[in-house]
Amino acid sequence: LALKGSNYAGLLERHRIHTKNVEHILDSLRNERIEVRLVKRREYNEETVRWADAIVSAGGDGTMLLAASKVFDKFKPVIGVNTDPERSEGHLCLPVRYTHSFPEAIQKLYRGEFRWQWRQRIRLYLEGTGINPTPVDLHEQQLSQEQHSRAHINERFQDQKSDVSGPHLLPVRALNEIFIGESLSSRYVCLLENFKSCKPSFKFSLHRASYYEISVDDGPWEKQKSSGLNVCTGTGSKAWSYNINKVAHQAVEDILKIAKKHGSLNMPLNMELVQKVTNYYNESLLYNPEEPKMFFSIREPIVNRVFSSSRQRGFSSKVCVRSRCWDACMVVDGGTSFEFNDGAIASIMINTDDALCTVLLEE
Amino acid sequence: LALKGSNYAGLLERHRIHTKNVEHILDSLRNERIEVRLVKRREYNEETVRWADAIVSAGGDGTMLLAASKVFDKFKPVIGVNTDPERSEGHLCLPVRYTHSFPEAIQKLYRGEFRWQWRQRIRLYLEGTGINPTPVDLHEQQLSQEQHSRAHINERFQDQKSDVSGPHLLPVRALNEIFIGESLSSRYVCLLENFKSCKPSFKFSLHRASYYEISVDDGPWEKQKSSGLNVCTGTGSKAWSYNINKVAHQAVEDILKIAKKHGSLNMPLNMELVQKVTNYYNESLLYNPEEPKMFFSIREPIVNRVFSSSRQRGFSSKVCVRSRCWDACMVVDGGTSFEFNDGAIASIMINTDDALCTVLLEE
Repeated sequence: LALKGSNYAGLLERHRIHTKNVEHILDSLRNERIEVRLVKRREYNEETVRWADAIVSAGGDGTMLLAASKVFDKFKPVIGVNTDPERSEGHLCLPVRYTHSFPEAIQKLYRGEFRWQWRQRIRLYLEGTGINPTPVDLHEQQLSQEQHSRAHINERFQDQKSDVSGPHLLPVRALNEIFIGESLSSRYVCLLENFKSCKPSFKFSLHRASYYEISVDDGPWEKQKSSGLNVCTGTGSKAWSYNINKVAHQAVEDILKIAKKHGSLNMPLNMELVQKVTNYYNESLLYNPEEPKMFFSIREPIVNRVFSSSRQRGFSSKVCVRSRCWDACMVVDGGTSFEFNDGAIASIMINTDDALCTVLLEE
Repeated sequence: LALKGSNYAGLLERHRIHTKNVEHILDSLRNERIEVRLVKRREYNEETVRWADAIVSAGGDGTMLLAASKVFDKFKPVIGVNTDPERSEGHLCLPVRYTHSFPEAIQKLYRGEFRWQWRQRIRLYLEGTGINPTPVDLHEQQLSQEQHSRAHINERFQDQKSDVSGPHLLPVRALNEIFIGESLSSRYVCLLENFKSCKPSFKFSLHRASYYEISVDDGPWEKQKSSGLNVCTGTGSKAWSYNINKVAHQAVEDILKIAKKHGSLNMPLNMELVQKVTNYYNESLLYNPEEPKMFFSIREPIVNRVFSSSRQRGFSSKVCVRSRCWDACMVVDGGTSFEFNDGAIASIMINTDDALCTVLLEE
């Protein structure tokens, strides 16, 4: 790492800080004679979740997503402590001050100086031809693309007799969002030569548009081509969805200038108004994590003779997507992925049974 | 394909149409006693380009990009014929009517009823530690990620004695754009089980933000985190760049509504104004392919305590990027990719020597 110019010393320091913060949480809990089991990422599983009365995630927002991913019990509280405040925004965690004074958080919990916050989550049904593979047990290492595909094809053909293509409820609940898009291959070649002219041995398309059909709230199916579809929760409205949809100060200024000129408007166009409009617009993209509604966004929609996009985004209760992709997937919270190729149909919705129980401490 | 529900008959038909269109072009040229060599994608190389006086690409815009990618001679005309009008917009090709009446195009060329159009292209310099691999000759098939990395590491260490890290001019010229971003891995697992609960064997992050530093027109370096950086030409301003930057009718309407309310403006807000503003804004994203200037866009910039983004997009003569990425690349015209990891510095600019010679027929 150091050879590459990476900040190895910085990484080591952050690890030290994290470890110290974890110790602090452990000590605080054990001082209250609360039995604590410390598990790392790879040991964390549903059995551990069942054993616990509550789960504390020690890390950043990513660790919270991982912690939540194994919790399916609406009444199992998950509390996030941000042990890496320099690096993580900690949207899903307790305010940063509790990281160094966790006993204070514990006292508030004892005294009832908090309220439950049920963060709604998204569930996924999958159906269609060719989506009924038996589980392929892959190790936590990289298979070659070829080996991986072969494994799937073999399984799929073996299972054709029991081809039950009714909707399957996938064993995941999205706390942030579901993202659907073409898989992007890592097959690339570094072809730099010092002295000779370079001959790329193969080319590939890194950015491939995703083709699919979408139906919102049981509305008519619409063919679309875009850089992907994001369906988020109130929790996720602050995450990737926000970055997809927010407008830049610069763009708002340009739009208002054009409107002023073309509408022959008598508009006092100053920085204050631009900032106000930008902030209000961007804030309207966020909503309460407890609201049982989803927000869908189409990323970089391609509009031409064939494809249309009546609405680029909006709230909905249900989104159905029919894949017309070659090599796409559905990604849950940036962490788990499901194959989603031509012929597969996904139904996406919120069920309040799936909510995640978290806490909001009184301030 | 048919088993998957794909439109095999449709694919076959498009291939038939394409083949017929290619025959028409060949016949038209040979009728004029012009010597024609028909080459497919894999046979097309710089030797073929040298042999020809001009190159006709028969396909869609993608084929034009491929054709252009082997041409480094400013005076070697490249003419695109859109043999797949149902599927390709044909921005880089002659108007669609010449696809079926190519002799008409030939006559115009003979009579001088055309003008030369020099489409500016972008060149790339690369420098920094760890970017001096000897060429790795990879076959046109998929290596496992592991095999690929090992190959690169071996080559890199062998070459450490001759570690010349001065700027290398890469042997590519971007006709549309350079895109810089984190490689997105295709390591995913399909984990759907019919009856049992699913245990994902491994997880990965499909959407990883790209970290880098950017300096525009030799300005101050700025740390950024985003979904990637796109630097395009006038030609490319109609392509991916357009989809990144265009605003939706819906967003303009929302912005104007907010401005009207918060600015207490007396603005007649009707659909006509919204449409006008939307069109004008989006049209302003396009510019003449012959202009020797680049347009950079930052895709989904992440703005927080650490990262800022003073300008999300703009015109420039020079863009320098220093990678802080783990596993990123620079992708040229969606077709060729170069490793661009932590420590590498890219300098991106237009040199009019690199222009591609195309034709604009008089109408």
